[in-house]
Amino acid sequence: PTSDSSRPTKVQELNVYEINERDRGSPAFLKLSQKSVNSLGDLVPFSNKVYSGDLEKRLGITSGICILIKNEPEKKGDRYEAIYSFYFGDYGHISVQGQYLTYQETYLAVTGGSGIFEGVYGQVKLQQLIFPFKLFYTFYLKGIADLPSELLGTPVPPSPTVEPSAAAKATEPHATIPNFTN
Amino acid sequence: PTSDSSRPTKVQELNVYEINERDRGSPAFLKLSQKSVNSLGDLVPFSNKVYSGDLEKRLGITSGICILIKNEPEKKGDRYEAIYSFYFGDYGHISVQGQYLTYQETYLAVTGGSGIFEGVYGQVKLQQLIFPFKLFYTFYLKGIADLPSELLGTPVPPSPTVEPSAAAKATEPHATIPNFTN
Amino acid sequence: PTSDSSRPTKVQELNVYEINERDRGSPAFLKLSQKSVNSLGDLVPFSNKVYSGDLEKRLGITSGICILIKNEPEKKGDRYEAIYSFYFGDYGHISVQGQYLTYQETYLAVTGGSGIFEGVYGQVKLQQLIFPFKLFYTFYLKGIADLPSELLGTPVPPSPTVEPSAAAKATEPHATIPNFTN
Repeated sequence: PTSDSSRPTKVQELNVYEINERDRGSPAFLKLSQKSVNSLGDLVPFSNKVYSGDLEKRLGITSGICILIKNEPEKKGDRYEAIYSFYFGDYGHISVQGQYLTYQETYLAVTGGSGIFEGVYGQVKLQQLIFPFKLFYTFYLKGIADLPSELLGTPVPPSPTVEPSAAAKATEPHATIPNFTN
Repeated sequence: PTSDSSRPTKVQELNVYEINERDRGSPAFLKLSQKSVNSLGDLVPFSNKVYSGDLEKRLGITSGICILIKNEPEKKGDRYEAIYSFYFGDYGHISVQGQYLTYQETYLAVTGGSGIFEGVYGQVKLQQLIFPFKLFYTFYLKGIADLPSELLGTPVPPSPTVEPSAAAKATEPHATIPNFTN
Repeated sequence: PTSDSSRPTKVQELNVYEINERDRGSPAFLKLSQKSVNSLGDLVPFSNKVYSGDLEKRLGITSGICILIKNEPEKKGDRYEAIYSFYFGDYGHISVQGQYLTYQETYLAVTGGSGIFEGVYGQVKLQQLIFPFKLFYTFYLKGIADLPSELLGTPVPPSPTVEPSAAAKATEPHATIPNFTN
């Protein structure tokens, strides 16, 4: 599935929304610290839906785990180590790792991918819109061929009120990508 | 342990078998979801044995974790997020991340490595032969020097009945690699 | 935050100390195996402090998880799969994955990074000085621009008795990096 060629170093931006529609039993907040306040020891497996930046297409899901590192009362939030992947149906996936702070945007590392994302590297900006239900990501991707245009629609500017199109939410065929991940 | 040189982009195929011989206490299925059906919240640390594709050499082990994402009754199986490594004794290791579906082959990302796998990238095809005890992997590796020939024997075609050679199973010196991981 | 340019392949060494000062509630040893001896199933989230190799600057923290793979009585220690990141304040972070053996030094994979570490690859040597409270790391990094000099001070030779400077321990402004991670 791979070919012998030089590796592109140009940056491609990819914008996606991650939305928790509360229909996947996610997150599973495992209070393994057995402390009343969020603490090291708590683990949070999760899986949410992923939509294109223009909110016209359902792409797939996220899946992975957040490891609670510490509660930061002065910031009214928590620090997590996040290790997860974004799935894009037949196009493949992107894996990421880095800090997730519930009170501030962060950059995570892109650690690899499959399919059209084979050999990918770079980083991704995470912006939280509604904790922990709506997030906006801007990937800065290198090492891969030009992305398909259906992933590259002009993003809806991120705000707490954005919603996927009704067709995308209903996963109508014209509003999904091939074999979108679910 | 590294040198300043250009990074190879040619693809090298590496085939290995992962076999659970039920002697490592693996997997540890942690039913943290506290639900009767497999659910988000369940975590599955594991470690199995790794043999060369020709089944003539014991190479090492896998080790890592599968995060249960969802049960898919219509597919009679489960979706996991898998984060683990393959250890090859003195040769080093390869880390991978991606989806593990108990009912279908998948591709995972190669996220990095050590030793002769320092700087590796690419992807790996996971084929399940007997759930969850026998799997066949084809790595498509880039970014590294030519692999040693003892890792590159012609693979036995994957099937549920394949078995490692008796010598490899017994980890006889001629049927292992240097300081094979155990 | 990234630019279109060729990717450096020269190796840069970066030395840091990871020190557990027992003030972060770390590690959280989750005995999920429910066995008296350390066993597969046990999980160990952790977060420690990171100092520069010359011990003159507090840089940030580590955060992540160790997955217990097996107890090795003949080695008087344990094998873990370690998945974690090193945070360097405004400079960004490095993610790593590989084996952590409580009785021996190992090499882990560098799987990615953010900020000045965007696009990083390579490996890192882990040396344990006092289990599990004091460790010394030598990163062999590729794919990134020249590191800032304040990260590159001459390392204090690793030994069990080394201590950070009083100023670094007290996170005095001249003994930290910009917005050091805490």
